[in-house]
Amino acid sequence: MEKWRATSNLRRSLKSILNRQLSSVSEFRYLNEKRSCQSSFNLIRDCKSLGQVNAIQHRCFSSASTLVQRNPSFSTLNSDDISYFKGLLGEKSVIQDEDRLETVNTDWMHKYKGSSKLLLLPRSTEEVAQILRYCNSRCLAVVPQGGNTGLVGGSVPVFDEVIVNVSSMKNIISFDKVSGILVCEAGCILENLISFLDNQGFIMPLDLGAKGSCQIGGNVSTNAGGLRLVRYGSLHENVLGLEAVLANGDVLDMLGTLRKDNTGYDLKHLFIGSEGSLGIVTKVSILTPPKLSSVNIAFLACNDYSSCQKLLMEAKRKLGEILSAFEFLDTEAMNLVLHQFDGVRNPLPASMHNFYILIETTGSDESYNRANNSKEDQRNTNKANDGGRRIKLDGCKLHVLAREQECRSCGWLVRTMRREFGHWILRFHQR
Amino acid sequence: MEKWRATSNLRRSLKSILNRQLSSVSEFRYLNEKRSCQSSFNLIRDCKSLGQVNAIQHRCFSSASTLVQRNPSFSTLNSDDISYFKGLLGEKSVIQDEDRLETVNTDWMHKYKGSSKLLLLPRSTEEVAQILRYCNSRCLAVVPQGGNTGLVGGSVPVFDEVIVNVSSMKNIISFDKVSGILVCEAGCILENLISFLDNQGFIMPLDLGAKGSCQIGGNVSTNAGGLRLVRYGSLHENVLGLEAVLANGDVLDMLGTLRKDNTGYDLKHLFIGSEGSLGIVTKVSILTPPKLSSVNIAFLACNDYSSCQKLLMEAKRKLGEILSAFEFLDTEAMNLVLHQFDGVRNPLPASMHNFYILIETTGSDESYNRANNSKEDQRNTNKANDGGRRIKLDGCKLHVLAREQECRSCGWLVRTMRREFGHWILRFHQR
Repeated sequence: MEKWRATSNLRRSLKSILNRQLSSVSEFRYLNEKRSCQSSFNLIRDCKSLGQVNAIQHRCFSSASTLVQRNPSFSTLNSDDISYFKGLLGEKSVIQDEDRLETVNTDWMHKYKGSSKLLLLPRSTEEVAQILRYCNSRCLAVVPQGGNTGLVGGSVPVFDEVIVNVSSMKNIISFDKVSGILVCEAGCILENLISFLDNQGFIMPLDLGAKGSCQIGGNVSTNAGGLRLVRYGSLHENVLGLEAVLANGDVLDMLGTLRKDNTGYDLKHLFIGSEGSLGIVTKVSILTPPKLSSVNIAFLACNDYSSCQKLLMEAKRKLGEILSAFEFLDTEAMNLVLHQFDGVRNPLPASMHNFYILIETTGSDESYNRANNSKEDQRNTNKANDGGRRIKLDGCKLHVLAREQECRSCGWLVRTMRREFGHWILRFHQR
Repeated sequence: MEKWRATSNLRRSLKSILNRQLSSVSEFRYLNEKRSCQSSFNLIRDCKSLGQVNAIQHRCFSSASTLVQRNPSFSTLNSDDISYFKGLLGEKSVIQDEDRLETVNTDWMHKYKGSSKLLLLPRSTEEVAQILRYCNSRCLAVVPQGGNTGLVGGSVPVFDEVIVNVSSMKNIISFDKVSGILVCEAGCILENLISFLDNQGFIMPLDLGAKGSCQIGGNVSTNAGGLRLVRYGSLHENVLGLEAVLANGDVLDMLGTLRKDNTGYDLKHLFIGSEGSLGIVTKVSILTPPKLSSVNIAFLACNDYSSCQKLLMEAKRKLGEILSAFEFLDTEAMNLVLHQFDGVRNPLPASMHNFYILIETTGSDESYNRANNSKEDQRNTNKANDGGRRIKLDGCKLHVLAREQECRSCGWLVRTMRREFGHWILRFHQR
């Protein structure tokens, strides 16, 4: 019944949003243009600490360079607005302090900078709803913000939007050990959820470098992927339900905990990855897999791209159900890492390889799940016989890293940055 | 770019649909009311061949019994319409023959019966688009139909809707062995896709009893789950892209093949499970997992429900990555099966148990993946030591079936029906 109500609410709201032509005038900024720049920004991020890129960048639609103009139909904040918010949230949750505004006006990479004069910190769905209802009636622009760790500027204002930051909504609502379903508020920091689940014998289906700061609501709104996507799929798979507040303050309760609920339209998927442009996610229910005890990593080099493809096919087939990550680097990316960080070295022989692959396996049986790949080349394609599962490859030149210490110095570096290293349990079969 | 176009197309179409108030006047009937009756229909289905239920039933909203009335604003077919369709599709694809119409007007369980006078068999997306564009302009009601194997009457007309059956669209468009991504037309029969993939060393992420007749477009439109859901997740996870034709004839090209594409709104999810009410799915791209060589099944009985829950938790934890199915039956369901089918017997001791569990494992290593559960009860909770992985349970009474022949006589019966049996490769560790 709740769901049907949600459907009809959304239908009404979509209609009203569409009628107001969301792409030109909207309470939520339409952020897709930023995301289309993501791939080039990643490279810029990698170079940042080399001092190559420091200037605040202007946002643009992909390659076009037209500046976004502030829509004059939006109002500007006045003292009545501030009074209303203080009455609603209390003095402490209405932030006008310049230093704190500086932080939330700037993205993690210091590439974008907004000029918001107001940060609101609601503690409940009802407060979010009332904020949005008020802003809607006053035609005040709003930008939803979580951990503000995004790389494409989606969580900071473009102009003077009111920032609604949900970081005060950080309660774990329930966890069912039988089904592995966690229900929590949107402001929960990913790492806190990971720790909580670890104590229960479960893991989060997503893990990424920003986990110490990013929030689950933001993860859902940006459809964050991370290191475990190859094994556990995207958030479209793992998020079972959502609660979200629409721009007009309507609350959509789609917070189901049934893994296969196909009654009606599955509207929650619209919110996953929509970057807050359809509403602010306030609660999430998520399916979490059990923690498996055995994690292993291997690092390999290939001379050509087709060998990498063959390796992926073989890894999927031979490691099958225990394959939990398959990460790809080319020489350029590898060199960047080697030059960028002290004490990092290529664990493979000095000769230059064109491509590198990091394979991780995770399984429930330690004696068995060894990401143990035999050293093979075109002249020797037989499986080695010293135990463990091996990938057999015809026509590929593989170099195998099988020492923990060596792997620790390079594995996951590119994706998780160094501070995340402790997370990976590296155990290797001695060859 | 294609995706952006699709988004703006859908936005326009949604707007036009919403403006016309889809719930009261729409080219596609709003089928959700039927699905809400699904659980009760399943039981009726089980009893059907006992002759208990034969009458054609009236559709209703859940428990309410209001009859749906034909909306008088829809037109009725005339000879000009028939001429148009014959000109568009050719004589052979415009069916008015009464015998053939009888079949497509009736659902698989012979519970619902429409009175359509016209069956159209388009062979391409363009033909589907032209049909819908024409029907929209003439205000003719349409019902999309695939294999017509649904149990809730979603694929047959309520009144005199034009039936658009996509079974002639059955081409496999591409298959990428590296990524495991299959792209095909919506009319492909599931079993044909399974066979095709089997030859390539892959499997479909979904498998269900109706696979010999059901079509992938219908599977997607109904968000069919089936036997592999616990392992491979729902179609929201596995469907990477869709092509669909909206009611006004617009073609939405969302046929991506990227596993993690989070640019823009992920509109395809709206179509998964929407039962054709938003548009007719014409092409599907789907991620297929590699075929793993070792499949095992165990059949167990539990005395109480909490033991079943504990068993699920232990199965997820101990069998972890190789667990591929966990099916639950209560005594009533078991008795129904035993009485319904000749030659089926309970493989477990004669004493009555309250609950039965069927566990299937699928893995890449035959010597290892044994769904081998030790015979344990409250007095003996130690793991047995004769090899294979075992589930250890405290406080649960388990009876273990470990003989292929015995299992063959009951496994999966309730969900897949007898003709599907050959599919399951049963191999057991001899105890």
